[in-house]
Amino acid sequence: MDRIKPIKITKDMKISELVSEMEEAGFGARKIGQASEIMKKMFSDSACTVFLGVAGAMVPAGMKEILIDMIKEDKISVFVTTGANLTHDLAEALGESHYACDVWDDVDFSKKGFDRIHNVFMKNTTYEKIERFFEENWEKFQNCKNITSFLRKIGELLLKEENSLLRICYEKNIPIFCPSIADSGIGLMVWGRLAAGKKLSIDAFEDMKSLIDIAWNSKKKGVIYLGGGVPKNFIQQSLQFSTGADYGIQITVDRPEPGGSSGAPLEEGISWGKLKPTAKRNSDYADVFCDATIALPLLWASVK
Amino acid sequence: MDRIKPIKITKDMKISELVSEMEEAGFGARKIGQASEIMKKMFSDSACTVFLGVAGAMVPAGMKEILIDMIKEDKISVFVTTGANLTHDLAEALGESHYACDVWDDVDFSKKGFDRIHNVFMKNTTYEKIERFFEENWEKFQNCKNITSFLRKIGELLLKEENSLLRICYEKNIPIFCPSIADSGIGLMVWGRLAAGKKLSIDAFEDMKSLIDIAWNSKKKGVIYLGGGVPKNFIQQSLQFSTGADYGIQITVDRPEPGGSSGAPLEEGISWGKLKPTAKRNSDYADVFCDATIALPLLWASVK
Amino acid sequence: MDRIKPIKITKDMKISELVSEMEEAGFGARKIGQASEIMKKMFSDSACTVFLGVAGAMVPAGMKEILIDMIKEDKISVFVTTGANLTHDLAEALGESHYACDVWDDVDFSKKGFDRIHNVFMKNTTYEKIERFFEENWEKFQNCKNITSFLRKIGELLLKEENSLLRICYEKNIPIFCPSIADSGIGLMVWGRLAAGKKLSIDAFEDMKSLIDIAWNSKKKGVIYLGGGVPKNFIQQSLQFSTGADYGIQITVDRPEPGGSSGAPLEEGISWGKLKPTAKRNSDYADVFCDATIALPLLWASVK
Amino acid sequence: MDRIKPIKITKDMKISELVSEMEEAGFGARKIGQASEIMKKMFSDSACTVFLGVAGAMVPAGMKEILIDMIKEDKISVFVTTGANLTHDLAEALGESHYACDVWDDVDFSKKGFDRIHNVFMKNTTYEKIERFFEENWEKFQNCKNITSFLRKIGELLLKEENSLLRICYEKNIPIFCPSIADSGIGLMVWGRLAAGKKLSIDAFEDMKSLIDIAWNSKKKGVIYLGGGVPKNFIQQSLQFSTGADYGIQITVDRPEPGGSSGAPLEEGISWGKLKPTAKRNSDYADVFCDATIALPLLWASVK
Repeated sequence: MDRIKPIKITKDMKISELVSEMEEAGFGARKIGQASEIMKKMFSDSACTVFLGVAGAMVPAGMKEILIDMIKEDKISVFVTTGANLTHDLAEALGESHYACDVWDDVDFSKKGFDRIHNVFMKNTTYEKIERFFEENWEKFQNCKNITSFLRKIGELLLKEENSLLRICYEKNIPIFCPSIADSGIGLMVWGRLAAGKKLSIDAFEDMKSLIDIAWNSKKKGVIYLGGGVPKNFIQQSLQFSTGADYGIQITVDRPEPGGSSGAPLEEGISWGKLKPTAKRNSDYADVFCDATIALPLLWASVK
Repeated sequence: MDRIKPIKITKDMKISELVSEMEEAGFGARKIGQASEIMKKMFSDSACTVFLGVAGAMVPAGMKEILIDMIKEDKISVFVTTGANLTHDLAEALGESHYACDVWDDVDFSKKGFDRIHNVFMKNTTYEKIERFFEENWEKFQNCKNITSFLRKIGELLLKEENSLLRICYEKNIPIFCPSIADSGIGLMVWGRLAAGKKLSIDAFEDMKSLIDIAWNSKKKGVIYLGGGVPKNFIQQSLQFSTGADYGIQITVDRPEPGGSSGAPLEEGISWGKLKPTAKRNSDYADVFCDATIALPLLWASVK
Repeated sequence: MDRIKPIKITKDMKISELVSEMEEAGFGARKIGQASEIMKKMFSDSACTVFLGVAGAMVPAGMKEILIDMIKEDKISVFVTTGANLTHDLAEALGESHYACDVWDDVDFSKKGFDRIHNVFMKNTTYEKIERFFEENWEKFQNCKNITSFLRKIGELLLKEENSLLRICYEKNIPIFCPSIADSGIGLMVWGRLAAGKKLSIDAFEDMKSLIDIAWNSKKKGVIYLGGGVPKNFIQQSLQFSTGADYGIQITVDRPEPGGSSGAPLEEGISWGKLKPTAKRNSDYADVFCDATIALPLLWASVK
Repeated sequence: MDRIKPIKITKDMKISELVSEMEEAGFGARKIGQASEIMKKMFSDSACTVFLGVAGAMVPAGMKEILIDMIKEDKISVFVTTGANLTHDLAEALGESHYACDVWDDVDFSKKGFDRIHNVFMKNTTYEKIERFFEENWEKFQNCKNITSFLRKIGELLLKEENSLLRICYEKNIPIFCPSIADSGIGLMVWGRLAAGKKLSIDAFEDMKSLIDIAWNSKKKGVIYLGGGVPKNFIQQSLQFSTGADYGIQITVDRPEPGGSSGAPLEEGISWGKLKPTAKRNSDYADVFCDATIALPLLWASVK
């Protein structure tokens, strides 16, 4: 029986020290500690392919550098995300910014052209830069026949020095999957070109093959889900049709009761074959109930 | 000042009577009552196009008949949903069932081939029927060039008498949008055919035009979101690029704090232009904090 | 294996019919249906003592009549609640009201003397009536030596015709337990008298004996928790020291992860002896994840 | 306009550095950063009396040392908590421990006499030590006439070297308020003595005077709520009857929609006079949506 050991904070304490102490505490702190151990296992197991699923809008919240670091340091093999994250990443790569708002009035913001995302906003004019990017580069996308290659081309077109998820994935040759790309600012800009009579032909299903192939060809698999949504589900279904994950970390505050995939505990995945039946709760996989903008920095700092 | 009037339950009380009483109570009950009034406004305003966004897995939870009824009774003009809902709908149309589980063991379920969705499960063999459906009908999809027409064709291929969302949308000529269709059992079955060397060419972006056209051409707009996810966001971005909604109802238990679109209050949409700045809280739009499988039957019964 | 049966809404459908249909659906709807069945078992089992724990501020939200009805119809044997509910009940018994607010400004409300409780408020002047009540009746409380008898005396002092929880419990001889009574408007009014030099001597612990005695002397026990808090915990600890509950219903949206009693699933109580190890999940006990102002009217209408 | 600055994790990064970076990010991370700044203001303002309200069961989760440190370092003037925290603190002071469980079976735990609190448990035999403590010291409590003095006496009776909240509050002369003390293991042990014919006379209301006096006599006030429940509400009502708080931090994942005090945003307190109308959101007060076992260590490390 493991005794709960109270967390003792010392002056100038390192994050890694705190996360170690959390592992011996209870409730949510314990889960952070356990997720850190699972992350270490996943990252140090050379047979393990790591699938990272990132929902929501992590880029405007300031999580971009951490994700870029994870990719730069070769921790991630497959990146699945929402169009939102890629749109915000592209916006920043093109010189646009996100801004903080601690008090706001949505009617006033609508007049100012400020698009609010909880306590963050971007200027509506941000879309103009993205539009121009696609206008200027439209012809270069003509050879892209699926979403992955379309996103890879965006990364290629960005400048080397740009601090961008799209760019780093291009440089590190990490495939980006985003089945719902139409549902995003990037989608809107593509629609704008198509509406203007331009052509582009991106297949909706073709990417699935390469993702499932990766899943099939991976000896072991680790999954990290920040939020749920399409990124989690798309990774899960590729595992379901190969073999389940060996390791898993899920960071979400969504509830299981309404039955959606986003709030489902990782354990539910065992029934589907998305997680191995031999995987052990809180040792091989852990559900972390926390805002990802709090938990991710802690976890990354603890394994770095 | 409106006094709170305690809810009085009478013997054999009708749902519509309860929802009326709820409107004069407080907290969540009040929101149900207000959402009912907003639904009535939306449905009785002949200038209003109603966009229904349904996330999650509402079909396995037994919400199919209500959604079908709403479409049958001409309340809905546009249906946006997840691949999950369409896959489960197709499975039931092909004679498969969903089952209840109140106690379970995921490892045991994995052996039995039972795929669990909270307190519901389906048999893994369900996929075989769907696979056969696509195998047998593959050639008939060759003319489908976008996701909407692909989904419409499925509805056409189902038998008249089948009680199905895909079928009723076909019959009523209601377009189904599902940008993340690859992320679903239907997606997996398509992948299976493609992996077997078959051809299909469905464009990932093409649908956007028709959805945004509908938004542009609607004098007034009402939105109903069951859960968030891609369905909510996809409707919202089409409104953002035309004019915002006049009426809105959102049923979700997702939290706003982690910043995702699913948990964002409708009011946030005002800043983006997704909701009209003149729309009034709890009179023109309401956020209902409730499991949709509880709130939707109440709302539908109250307006029927 | 029980098939999920989609809910079918008919015109003028009764609540009891809907709740029956919910029992054959999935997710939260199913839980409502199951809780209704458990409530029927509890209420029809003549050997069963029913403990009702009501947290939060259910009275200002308009739940008073339902609770009064439950007591009037002899469904409840023990009532445990917060000082808030009793204060709001007393305020209404003295002729004060609660009011609805769908849009508000807290700074403005502070100027107007409106005390807000989510989308409900009361006038600050409400306290004056309660103060006067205690001023005028102070001497009559001198024989009350514990919280239960103090609350019973309030009920006795109210007029017969008053629609009040305090009054109906007095009339039906149902003991009210409220260990944290100091933490309420009633507490503040008592403090005001004490600060003015008046005397009153109410014991903080004495009530426990009678509650635990009831628990000991009950052949079977059923518990209904609306919200968690002290009411749930106080009932649970009395069961822990006698024998656990046979039946249980909990309605709350609190989360289990932060480890508090309010969000703990009923099942956790088995380890403590608060719930019998033989009780079956979703058949003898159920956790309903729903705002109590929505779930309680449904449940009460379904068993009435 | 403040740009969102992505969080950059460096090797061996200190917690205080991370919390500083969080303040320039968005979503929940930003709130942690802002709460840290507010905590610094509160602690460095010599005119400010700090009221700490701690709900739930923070001691079994390993938060005891942090709370003790805060008191030792003179950051806290008033401590309001649940009987649960004090019971668990007393148990540990008497040599008992809490244990971790990552996988469990409640029926099995019930046989073993393990009482589960989410992923922590204690042995049922722990109560025996507490019982003996009260048995042996019963006469020493006879002069305690209110809850505060009763709790202070427990602290006095513990040995100097014991690492205990009850002890440190005694040593530092910090009053502990716990209006619902009957609702706890300590309450049960007192009941046991009373049931055995022993006497004790603790007043339920008397403490209110000293708490409200402190509130009245404080030039400025800061509040820190870990969880909600009685501790938050009891502090809030004392402020309501003096003047509202100048600074506030609330850490909870409870929802506002069901209308309970626990989930109410601090801002609601402005209407009641519990928070000053001049206090500024996210600058003077902040609602942190996070498990307190994760947020508290971060905040304390950032201000230490």
